[in-house]
Amino acid sequence: MDEADQRHRQRMARKKQVIDARIAAAQGARGVVVLHTGNGKGKSSAAFGVLARALGHGQRAAVVQFVKARSDTGEEEFFRVHPQVRWHVMGEGFTWETQDKARDAAAAQAAWAQARAYLADPVIDLLILDEITYAFKYGWLDLDAVIAALKDRPPMQHVILTGRAAPPALVAAADTVSEIAAVKHAFQAGVPAMPGVEF
Amino acid sequence: MDEADQRHRQRMARKKQVIDARIAAAQGARGVVVLHTGNGKGKSSAAFGVLARALGHGQRAAVVQFVKARSDTGEEEFFRVHPQVRWHVMGEGFTWETQDKARDAAAAQAAWAQARAYLADPVIDLLILDEITYAFKYGWLDLDAVIAALKDRPPMQHVILTGRAAPPALVAAADTVSEIAAVKHAFQAGVPAMPGVEF
Repeated sequence: MDEADQRHRQRMARKKQVIDARIAAAQGARGVVVLHTGNGKGKSSAAFGVLARALGHGQRAAVVQFVKARSDTGEEEFFRVHPQVRWHVMGEGFTWETQDKARDAAAAQAAWAQARAYLADPVIDLLILDEITYAFKYGWLDLDAVIAALKDRPPMQHVILTGRAAPPALVAAADTVSEIAAVKHAFQAGVPAMPGVEF
Repeated sequence: MDEADQRHRQRMARKKQVIDARIAAAQGARGVVVLHTGNGKGKSSAAFGVLARALGHGQRAAVVQFVKARSDTGEEEFFRVHPQVRWHVMGEGFTWETQDKARDAAAAQAAWAQARAYLADPVIDLLILDEITYAFKYGWLDLDAVIAALKDRPPMQHVILTGRAAPPALVAAADTVSEIAAVKHAFQAGVPAMPGVEF
């Protein structure tokens, strides 16, 4: 075998290696469950950043906000008009604001009914369940039912869940978990919530 | 003073309290420096989520990517077409990929020249310096010069910096710092980087 042949053979072997690696990777491809928890700023923002990313790849997405009641946020204003996004603000605010446990629980259950419909819909590539963890903390939703629905979802669907104090069973059920700690926050220095940065 | 008068007085006192609080808040209003660091997933995503939020409020933004060299990311595809966004992919990839220190340093300095121009431009409401921390780690940029430029920026401009292992002086200079820890990641379970979620 002459030198040119040998070089060609080596080149092809290398090419095969790359292709094999790609096939192996593709075999592991599936939807992932991502959880953003902790007390720091960035849990929901990171979900919305992934939403932008997914839309950039032509995916379809749905967002269900479990606690947020306001509809004047920059993220909603920005994404709601996108044809591939369905956006649902289904909360009643935080419980210490509403002081009405029955109404909070009903709102969370309505939000979950909406979320469950998306978890059964393979058209949705990415589903964001924003601030859902509070629904477990206050006993508004059954954690086992939520985990079961996550496991039964379409295999290529990605789900991002956000909120403080995620229960350990939810951490166990997720593929990727980031814990966002607050090292410091501008409000400690007297800066009010700034539009764009905070909402 | 009759009862109706007294009720009115109480109501007005309460109203004054609310207005005073708003004035106090407004006086603290200013641009903030936000830092997303740590080894977990979500540092850049959270910055892009804030970008969406800022655009929803009609703000103008610029993004300078210090390390990223690829231009096939979903976030770039999604945001680059927006008329109020200027997007610059200025990296050469990670150094262990390029194996060329001089080229890496030159790329970081070019990215910094672009960033510095935005840090002097009050038209830009939000500036994202993505993965800038690596430039300090590898000695490509002078940290003191970057901190000085942050301090001299237009007073209402927000800046988000991302990247692992932020140097302590940068943490000190920032108003809001989130440390994102990786609790677990889907790749540990053999799932390859999925488009939409990871890039």
